[in-house]
This record gives sequence, structure tokens and C-alpha cells, in this order.
Amino acid sequence: MDATTRIEQALAAAIDHVIPGSPPRLAEAVRHAVFPGGARVRPRLCLAVAAACGSKDYAAADAAAASIELLHCASLVHDDLPCFDDSPLRRGVPSVHRAFGEPLAVLAGDALIILAFEHLARSLESERLGPLLLTVSRSVGMPYGITAGQAWECEPSVSVEDYHRAKTGSLFAAATAAGAQVAGADAEVWRVVGDRIGEAYQVADDLRDVAASAQEVGKPVGRDALLNRPSAAGELGVDGAIERLRGLVKGAIDAIPPCPGAEQLAEVLMVESRHIMPKDLAQRAA
Amino acid sequence: MDATTRIEQALAAAIDHVIPGSPPRLAEAVRHAVFPGGARVRPRLCLAVAAACGSKDYAAADAAAASIELLHCASLVHDDLPCFDDSPLRRGVPSVHRAFGEPLAVLAGDALIILAFEHLARSLESERLGPLLLTVSRSVGMPYGITAGQAWECEPSVSVEDYHRAKTGSLFAAATAAGAQVAGADAEVWRVVGDRIGEAYQVADDLRDVAASAQEVGKPVGRDALLNRPSAAGELGVDGAIERLRGLVKGAIDAIPPCPGAEQLAEVLMVESRHIMPKDLAQRAA
Repeated sequence: MDATTRIEQALAAAIDHVIPGSPPRLAEAVRHAVFPGGARVRPRLCLAVAAACGSKDYAAADAAAASIELLHCASLVHDDLPCFDDSPLRRGVPSVHRAFGEPLAVLAGDALIILAFEHLARSLESERLGPLLLTVSRSVGMPYGITAGQAWECEPSVSVEDYHRAKTGSLFAAATAAGAQVAGADAEVWRVVGDRIGEAYQVADDLRDVAASAQEVGKPVGRDALLNRPSAAGELGVDGAIERLRGLVKGAIDAIPPCPGAEQLAEVLMVESRHIMPKDLAQRAA
Repeated sequence: MDATTRIEQALAAAIDHVIPGSPPRLAEAVRHAVFPGGARVRPRLCLAVAAACGSKDYAAADAAAASIELLHCASLVHDDLPCFDDSPLRRGVPSVHRAFGEPLAVLAGDALIILAFEHLARSLESERLGPLLLTVSRSVGMPYGITAGQAWECEPSVSVEDYHRAKTGSLFAAATAAGAQVAGADAEVWRVVGDRIGEAYQVADDLRDVAASAQEVGKPVGRDALLNRPSAAGELGVDGAIERLRGLVKGAIDAIPPCPGAEQLAEVLMVESRHIMPKDLAQRAA
């Protein structure tokens, strides 16, 4: 089964388990937040690393990947709220608060966070659960996870690097670390690979924000400048940012530790790095 | 060490672990949400059940109790948001969104949910973690936990019983079930005790909403009628609601399964049931 099918099935299974008996509109809001998905970059990375490390425990990898994607979806729902980005669109359709109202958007985000942990507990053997859960919680909580990253926006001053590492990099680092943990490999070594991909992804996101159309991205663009947020494209210019993105992808590939599927993983990362760039920039960079 | 000290120390330890490196205002908002606390009814119930079942594993009981209280605090922060109750006060001081703004209130709630699970993973041995985590996640997630309970407010119609059981009862049921699990006792039998205490607590909350002063309660009163929420006091009148509360506490005590500390626990529940009533009603009911 290919990675995309595995991820969609794992997400559907996690959600289907908690739908019967739920308030119908909350259930709808949760589904709306998760399906149809975006690129599923983080769970694909998790599965790719587990495979590169030679893991045959597909169920554990699927559970870790799904849990990471659920947390990513939760963060999007809360980031889109009126008190943050007030985004009307996400993945080309109305954001959760626009479609279901603000109360259900807050609750759907909460429910997705809880489900991510519950799904890990339901899916993993006891010796694996603790370490994987700590990897995942660290990537979303305080002090260095997504929640903390978002909260840096509420501080009078912030290191751009700390901000991006927490807000974006942390869940990529969790994806590679969790993939390695599933295979019994060293999570910390693999975390470096995820960190660099996360940085590359952030640069690509900055580029999309200045250079892509809202239709292509599926959410409003030009928000970084509008909201005065730190942006690699703003700092380095478009060409400088493309150069930086390339360097980061190369750095991620160089950081792949010896493992059975190292070469194939390097190829996957190269392909992914082209996917995440706005289309015309990808042609320019090719 | 008495229960109150153990709970405050366990909560402080859980939070202190994730403060260094965090955005300072998020750290402050999280502390504000948890300290100074309310009655800590749920974690005290968890510790009381663990003790009644003869558990000597104080660390595990403290971790379960702290995790449950962190989730309770998270739910208060999100319930107070402008899109729900828009409550200016909580525990006699400004609610988190009034003190720190709405973005940090959303994030502090998220961070507390994550911390609750992370703290369990950090504190419990691997064989215990899975079952306890499922007890706790079930009490806050979908389909029957707090998040679902709150979401019933967004539905055109709702069974009052389902609504209260999810919104209030679920975390009480988790408190008794988790206390039993720590001691290796049967969680399902003990869940019934928690369910009934939760119902009693909900009736007491309804009574406080109609019969107590805002100063005594530390949050605005008269909200149920204003927001047209189902209320036992509204349905049964004050005397009827007091009668119902007594019956529920008796039912909880009757449901205590045979255990070394059954008698002492029954006494604790009687004392608690007087604590949660508005002062003048407690005198009237005595």
C-alpha cells in the first residue's frame, strides 16, 4: 500500500473511532479539519524515515504518522481563528471557524489534540508508547513546540530562528524522530534531518506567501508582510530564499545517518523540496 | 503529606518542567490558569480513591491527579473565551483571556492539554501509561468527554443528561477510575462512583449559579438562565435540587466497592458534598 493511502486510512480510522455518539456538528468540524488533506508532508516524512530505517512495523508507523498529522490539523484550525490569522480559507475551502463558527473551531482543535494522544495510546505497545508520546508532545507543547512557537507572536521581541524552529520545525523533527523510534533507531540523530526539512519548509512557505497565488496555495497570501511576521523571502529576497531552501534540503540529506534506505530517502527529499515550492519558482529553480 | 500539598506540588512540578525556554507570557498565562487553584475537587477525589484502594504508589497517583486537574484548568480557560461564556472572572481574578488576551488564552488551553498527556508519559511506568492515558483522554475527548459536552451547546437539541455527563461527569469518572487504576483495582466499577459525584457536582454548580453571590463563587452567577442552559435548579427549584444532590451523594457512597478504605472515603464524600454547596444552602440543608 502506498504512503498516501496508508496515511488517509490511518487518519480515517483514528477519527471514525470517536465519531459514534459525538455531537454531529463537532464530528463534522473535525472531519472538515482533516479531510481532504493538504500535502500530508509530515506523516509522509515519518513513514519514509521508518521505511529507510528498515522498520516492518507498519501499524506503529501509521499510528505515529496519523497522530502527527492530527496535531498539525489542530494547529491549523486554531491558527486560523479570528484572534490569530482570521483566515477565511484553508486548503481552498472555508476554514473551520468560517464553516462551523468559532466555538466549534476551538473545540475541534482541542478534540484533535486529545485524539492524537488517545490514538497513540490505543495503537502502540506499552514499551513504545512512552518514548513516542514524549517525542510527539514535545513537538507541540511548551517550551519548544508549535504552541510555544505561536505564542512567540505575542511577545514584544523574538528570535526569528527560535520562532520558526518551534512553530514549524518542531513537528518535522518529531516526524523524523518518531519514524526512527518506530524502527528502534536513534531518534536524536534523525531529529536533525527533520529540523532542516522543517526550516526548508518554512522558507518555502515564506516564498509561497510572496510569490504564489491564493488559488494555488488554498489560503490567503501576502499575510507575512501584512501581519509583519518574520519571513525569509522578506529578508533575503526571492532568489536568496530559493538558494537558502536548496542549502537546507542539501543539509537535511547530508544529515541522514547510515541506514538501509538512505539513498531512496534522499531522493524522496529532493522530490518533496520541489513539490513545496510555488510552481513557477520550481521551474525557475530547476 | 496531605492531599492538598501533594496536588499543588505535583501541578507545580508538571508546569515547572516546561517553563524554562518558553515564551514568558505563555508561561505566565499557564500559571495564571492553574494557580491559585479552586477546590481541586477532581484530583482530591483521585487521590482519595487510590488511597481507599490501598495504593502506596503515591507518585503515580499524584501524576494522574495532576493530569486531570491540568485538563480541568484547560477546559475552564477555553470555556471562558469570548466565543463561549465570555467570562471576565474565574476564581475571583480576571480570566486568562481578560488578563493575557485571547490568543494566549487559546494557546494556554492547548498547552495545558498537551502538558497533561506529556506529564503522564513522563511520570508513569510503561505498563501503566496506556490504560491511564485512555481513561484520561476518554474523559476529555470525543464522543463522551468534556470537549464533546461543550460541543452539545452548539447543537439544536441535546439530552440534558448526556450534556452534563459529558461536560462535567466525565472528568469525575476519570478521577475515580484513574485512582482505581493506580491501585490495580477495577476502573469500571469505580467509574460509577465518579459519575454520580459528577452529577452531584453539576447540581451543586446549578445551585450556586442561582443561589450564591459572585463573590462567593469567584465567577459571574445567573449565567445558566441568561444563556438558557439546562439547570437542575431551574427544573426542580432550589429545594428539589438540594434533595437531588443528597440522593446523588448517597448513590455515590452506595456505589463504593469493597476496599480497605471504604468507610473513610464515604466520610470524605459527605464532607465534600457540603463544601460544594453555596454557604447558606449548606446551612439550610444541614
